[in-house]
Amino acid sequence: MTVAIHDLDAYIEASRPGFEADLRTIVEIPTISMDPARQPDIRLGADWAVAFLQRMGAEARIIETAGHPLVVGIWRHPDAKRTLTVYNHMDVQPASEPGWTTEPFAFINDNGTYRGRGTTDDKGPALTAVYALRYAHEQGVPLTLRILWEFEEEIGSPNFAEALATHRDALATDSVLVSDTIWINRQKPAAPLGLRGMVTFRLLLETGTKDVHSGLVGGAARNPLAEMAEVIAAMLDARTGDIRIPGIYDEVAPLSAEEQAGFVAAGFDPAEFQRVYGLKGLRHQDVAEVTRRIWAWPTLEVHGIVGGYSGPGVKSVVPPTAEAKLSMRLVPDQQPDVIIERVRAFVAHLNPDIRLEVGGKLEPYKGSATGPYATALRQAIAFGFGSEPAFVREGGSIGAVVSMQRYLGCPVMFLGLSLPEHGYHAPNENFDWGMASGGMKAFVRYCEAVSTLEA
Amino acid sequence: MTVAIHDLDAYIEASRPGFEADLRTIVEIPTISMDPARQPDIRLGADWAVAFLQRMGAEARIIETAGHPLVVGIWRHPDAKRTLTVYNHMDVQPASEPGWTTEPFAFINDNGTYRGRGTTDDKGPALTAVYALRYAHEQGVPLTLRILWEFEEEIGSPNFAEALATHRDALATDSVLVSDTIWINRQKPAAPLGLRGMVTFRLLLETGTKDVHSGLVGGAARNPLAEMAEVIAAMLDARTGDIRIPGIYDEVAPLSAEEQAGFVAAGFDPAEFQRVYGLKGLRHQDVAEVTRRIWAWPTLEVHGIVGGYSGPGVKSVVPPTAEAKLSMRLVPDQQPDVIIERVRAFVAHLNPDIRLEVGGKLEPYKGSATGPYATALRQAIAFGFGSEPAFVREGGSIGAVVSMQRYLGCPVMFLGLSLPEHGYHAPNENFDWGMASGGMKAFVRYCEAVSTLEA
Repeated sequence: MTVAIHDLDAYIEASRPGFEADLRTIVEIPTISMDPARQPDIRLGADWAVAFLQRMGAEARIIETAGHPLVVGIWRHPDAKRTLTVYNHMDVQPASEPGWTTEPFAFINDNGTYRGRGTTDDKGPALTAVYALRYAHEQGVPLTLRILWEFEEEIGSPNFAEALATHRDALATDSVLVSDTIWINRQKPAAPLGLRGMVTFRLLLETGTKDVHSGLVGGAARNPLAEMAEVIAAMLDARTGDIRIPGIYDEVAPLSAEEQAGFVAAGFDPAEFQRVYGLKGLRHQDVAEVTRRIWAWPTLEVHGIVGGYSGPGVKSVVPPTAEAKLSMRLVPDQQPDVIIERVRAFVAHLNPDIRLEVGGKLEPYKGSATGPYATALRQAIAFGFGSEPAFVREGGSIGAVVSMQRYLGCPVMFLGLSLPEHGYHAPNENFDWGMASGGMKAFVRYCEAVSTLEA
Repeated sequence: MTVAIHDLDAYIEASRPGFEADLRTIVEIPTISMDPARQPDIRLGADWAVAFLQRMGAEARIIETAGHPLVVGIWRHPDAKRTLTVYNHMDVQPASEPGWTTEPFAFINDNGTYRGRGTTDDKGPALTAVYALRYAHEQGVPLTLRILWEFEEEIGSPNFAEALATHRDALATDSVLVSDTIWINRQKPAAPLGLRGMVTFRLLLETGTKDVHSGLVGGAARNPLAEMAEVIAAMLDARTGDIRIPGIYDEVAPLSAEEQAGFVAAGFDPAEFQRVYGLKGLRHQDVAEVTRRIWAWPTLEVHGIVGGYSGPGVKSVVPPTAEAKLSMRLVPDQQPDVIIERVRAFVAHLNPDIRLEVGGKLEPYKGSATGPYATALRQAIAFGFGSEPAFVREGGSIGAVVSMQRYLGCPVMFLGLSLPEHGYHAPNENFDWGMASGGMKAFVRYCEAVSTLEA
């Protein structure tokens, strides 16, 4: 069967109030996976998700893990020969950073622009997919349609792989569609052929037990912040972004001239990139170098240095501890375990008193731009938005992707609905009805296309 | 006249409840000069101080400055030919550091140990002096006795010099006694022959306007925390404490072999020093080198690095700004203005986008261990505590001292009552009745001795 376009448009328009009300409800539940104090909100979010999916006509349930739960929903069709699973995550980043002009967990509907933490990453795309899958199901698209929602994506999916392994039969699928990626710009859809992996880690140094007066001890006492700065400076050339840790680039797969040319051809504009992200300058200016650095090259970032005094003015204490919050983005074929051991060895060599604590580890991912799913994706995005996607890479990391590829043993494609200006992990995060409504069309079209593939 | 020792002991014992009640009142007023929000508390503290001094029999008033006020009190004697001024400060450090086991601004009297921010630095010694001066006055010691209390010492006395210049006549004095320094240990009184100076400054770097997702921009975006770490590492060898800024040691006055020998003979014990300040290790082990580093050598300290994420876990944002809170302790004959310009030039050379904002500037101070006031001080401390003070140096900075020497044109001596374990600028700051009662005896004896000097 084929969905008649006028029916779909009418469905989408009629769905808007419900979509906005549902998005409001889930955005206002602060499902911050990183914050132990938000555990009850994660649970509330999962309970709401089950009820929501049931209201949308799916069977739905919670799958418990050792950490935060998964939620799965399913629409079955009597003639279905294939299963399509759409993956999103329902946990969000904290929203404590300065710059928010509205309350992060108060949903604002500003005439079709939706503001609040999680609107674009990833609750808006998640609800878009559900509204589309319900329509596809009701129109009789002969597929088993499954929703798979994770609540630990923002902390590196620590329990996702094990949950997939445990529930491999229940979650068996022929392909996965992930909706958690970002376009080049509003005119230029993009789908990644690769994702960077990631390791997050904290460096911890204790040189004392309490704040002490620098007039009394300064000169003899160690300064943990200064020692931490020394180690960070040794690890990274901050002006170029080049990492100085020995061996760190050994396993980086060379970027083909073809892929590099594709990056440049995708329409990426460094000046626009700088503007959208509010940057005052870039480490590099050349399009080829900027795209290579953000999509296909490892990074080392300092996310925070904690210790000592952070109030107004200068308080002249020598603090007892310092903590550096760091991460590295990894590219094919870097392995998180190998990389973290090289970091550990380098830090131990520089300062044996520093303890390294690993946070999350995500492998990099490399996909394919050819084959029936890639074709379906091109058609779906063209149908939803009027132009085909550029196949580039994504600088971010979705640990779940590598796990799904491994444990479900099937192709993973990307139908992202976020724009650079939506503010992933940033203040004033937002999403909009333009991307939601186009997204619903694209998802429905993708379901149709996948339903016609040979079993 | 001579104060009979049994009368003084009885006075001190009888004064204890009043002293403890007064100390409670002023400790519970959070006179944090660094925090603009505490301005009303500073004013309340100054008003209380005037009322307290009047209750103690002195004439008292507030002297306004461009910042926080001064409070002066005076007891006049008809036959006085000389004036003695006792300086203390009534502002305190913030108390936001972790490790407090009691509420910092709730006074705890733990059987003669007084807990709370400001108990030892410097409200306890200040009240000790007042109780002693009242007694000396009532016993007829023929001196004009003046109390001079500052409320901006902890922010580097930014308006003190100008206030002294403006009120030079009203504040004219023959000598000053400062009570804001620390002994070697409870058995070993000490009086400084020198104080380190200080410059505090903040390094500020803005590379963006908001937090951005490191997966999206990481590699191309500058990381301000990493750039700040690079600059800090270039300024300081954190393991030795040696400063790498060109020319920074040029004006350091050589330490005489005699003075260095005096440091070693003073009874300073590095192991005890490490224990009292809760340090896990020291940069140097040798007594001569440790005392030189803390008393007679410049430092560069990192007090805080602000920017990015400081909550639980690791949030993978590239922050838009970084701030480093730094200070240098200076020694004779370093000049703050010269030093800060060398720092500014070095930072500008390393990273021209970093802005340097100067906080406070205090000149180092060098005094004398000989002469009638030094003799009076030896006698007074021996009378109060049973042993003469070691004349060493103090690693801390009291900007007011240099200003008083310059504008009042008179000797400045030190009768400190604090111990290392009292926790200057540290959590669980405390003072005790042993130091207060001995201090009262010492102050009274010092007044007597000074009253007998030739006019």
